Amino acid sequence: SLARRCHDRSTAMLDVPFLPFCAFLGTLGLLCVAMVGTWCQHWRGGFSLDGSSRTFNWHPVLMVTGLVVLYGAAALVYRIPNTWSGPKLPWKVLHGSLALGAFVLTVLGLAAVFRFHNSQGTPNMYSLHSWMGLGTVLLFSCQWAAGFGAFLLPWAPAWLRALYKPIHVFFGSTILMLSVASCVSGINEKLFFSLKNGTTAYKLLPAEAVFANTLGLLILIFGVLVVGALARPSWKRPDSDSPDSRQ
Amino acid sequence: SLARRCHDRSTAMLDVPFLPFCAFLGTLGLLCVAMVGTWCQHWRGGFSLDGSSRTFNWHPVLMVTGLVVLYGAAALVYRIPNTWSGPKLPWKVLHGSLALGAFVLTVLGLAAVFRFHNSQGTPNMYSLHSWMGLGTVLLFSCQWAAGFGAFLLPWAPAWLRALYKPIHVFFGSTILMLSVASCVSGINEKLFFSLKNGTTAYKLLPAEAVFANTLGLLILIFGVLVVGALARPSWKRPDSDSPDSRQ
Repeated sequence: SLARRCHDRSTAMLDVPFLPFCAFLGTLGLLCVAMVGTWCQHWRGGFSLDGSSRTFNWHPVLMVTGLVVLYGAAALVYRIPNTWSGPKLPWKVLHGSLALGAFVLTVLGLAAVFRFHNSQGTPNMYSLHSWMGLGTVLLFSCQWAAGFGAFLLPWAPAWLRALYKPIHVFFGSTILMLSVASCVSGINEKLFFSLKNGTTAYKLLPAEAVFANTLGLLILIFGVLVVGALARPSWKRPDSDSPDSRQ
Repeated sequence: SLARRCHDRSTAMLDVPFLPFCAFLGTLGLLCVAMVGTWCQHWRGGFSLDGSSRTFNWHPVLMVTGLVVLYGAAALVYRIPNTWSGPKLPWKVLHGSLALGAFVLTVLGLAAVFRFHNSQGTPNMYSLHSWMGLGTVLLFSCQWAAGFGAFLLPWAPAWLRALYKPIHVFFGSTILMLSVASCVSGINEKLFFSLKNGTTAYKLLPAEAVFANTLGLLILIFGVLVVGALARPSWKRPDSDSPDSRQ
């Protein structure tokens, strides 16, 4: 029918090729990492392991790098068309390794903020940011362990893999959304803590505030684009509802 | 094949019926509204229109009610199986009306915080929360106007409707994620502002902090469940890729 042809033509007009989109996303992710590093180096005094606010500075850098950018890269592995044929095991190992790298950075990022709080005598885990962030990391650890047990270890039965796969996919996107929301609330909170007096008050929008607010928006855009890419039907493996083959 | 049957059986095990899920979601949404109202009434001094912090209190209540709960209800209209057959126009009008109601509450919520800032001499639009929140509301206004123009007014051609529909669906979920992230960063920020001294310091986790942190987590869970319900293939209209019929 005409309507059908119109629809197909219109859908085709929206088709973006995956790999150029990925290159853009990679650039955006690296920009986020560079910006969070620049923020902490240029305005917040740089990095150290001495328990001061320079130890805290590892927290935003490691969280943005691990829980957002590297996590996003891990999540997108199965959208690369090369993964759709041939043996699955190498891609599973890549997906699991990137996620493990993201998790290690995340745990180091948590260690940085706990060490900072403890050496300053500040209580841990009171703000909504901390509750949401720790909840996100706990979900991520369950996600990694369950994914490893179900998809990489050889003894999970096919029915269990098939049952768990949509759950793993759902939590994959959910954890990224929660990560991004945690980063944004953390940047907002840190700016209120750091920019208090005189001409650098947050409410007067000094250069640091514009820079870090922009970083927050870029992290949001990165997260929305990754979650959107994961949800896009034409970028999913064509046989994505077929049972997972044992390796 | 055995694997195929295993997969079908496993998928069936995960099937939750939509309407009981909706009842749960409605209860959760009402709980969020009740809790944000209780927070502002019981701990933050209640409501007024005099430009004081009691005027500000309308801001969280209207945003959670409009931009999260009512918005979520509007987004889920086309997942009700009754909407899949018969004339579409009544359901379009319901979807558009709920979204318009959400938008009106949202604009009133913005008016409350601007009025509070202006009467206190506080600058507007400096925090990351405010940038993200206003960006979300601007996206929502574009989304509503474009949806009205493309799907409710009679003169949009079928190819334009087909082209725009996946964009409208994508931004529908995206705006809800941004709303939830805005709410969480706003609750976090408000608690740092309000709970500063003595035994009510935020870091000592007084009852208000536990209550409002819990509210933030419930808003997150509400948002994740709505976005997950929207993405769930078995809850979409079976002919969802067919062209939109003119009304």
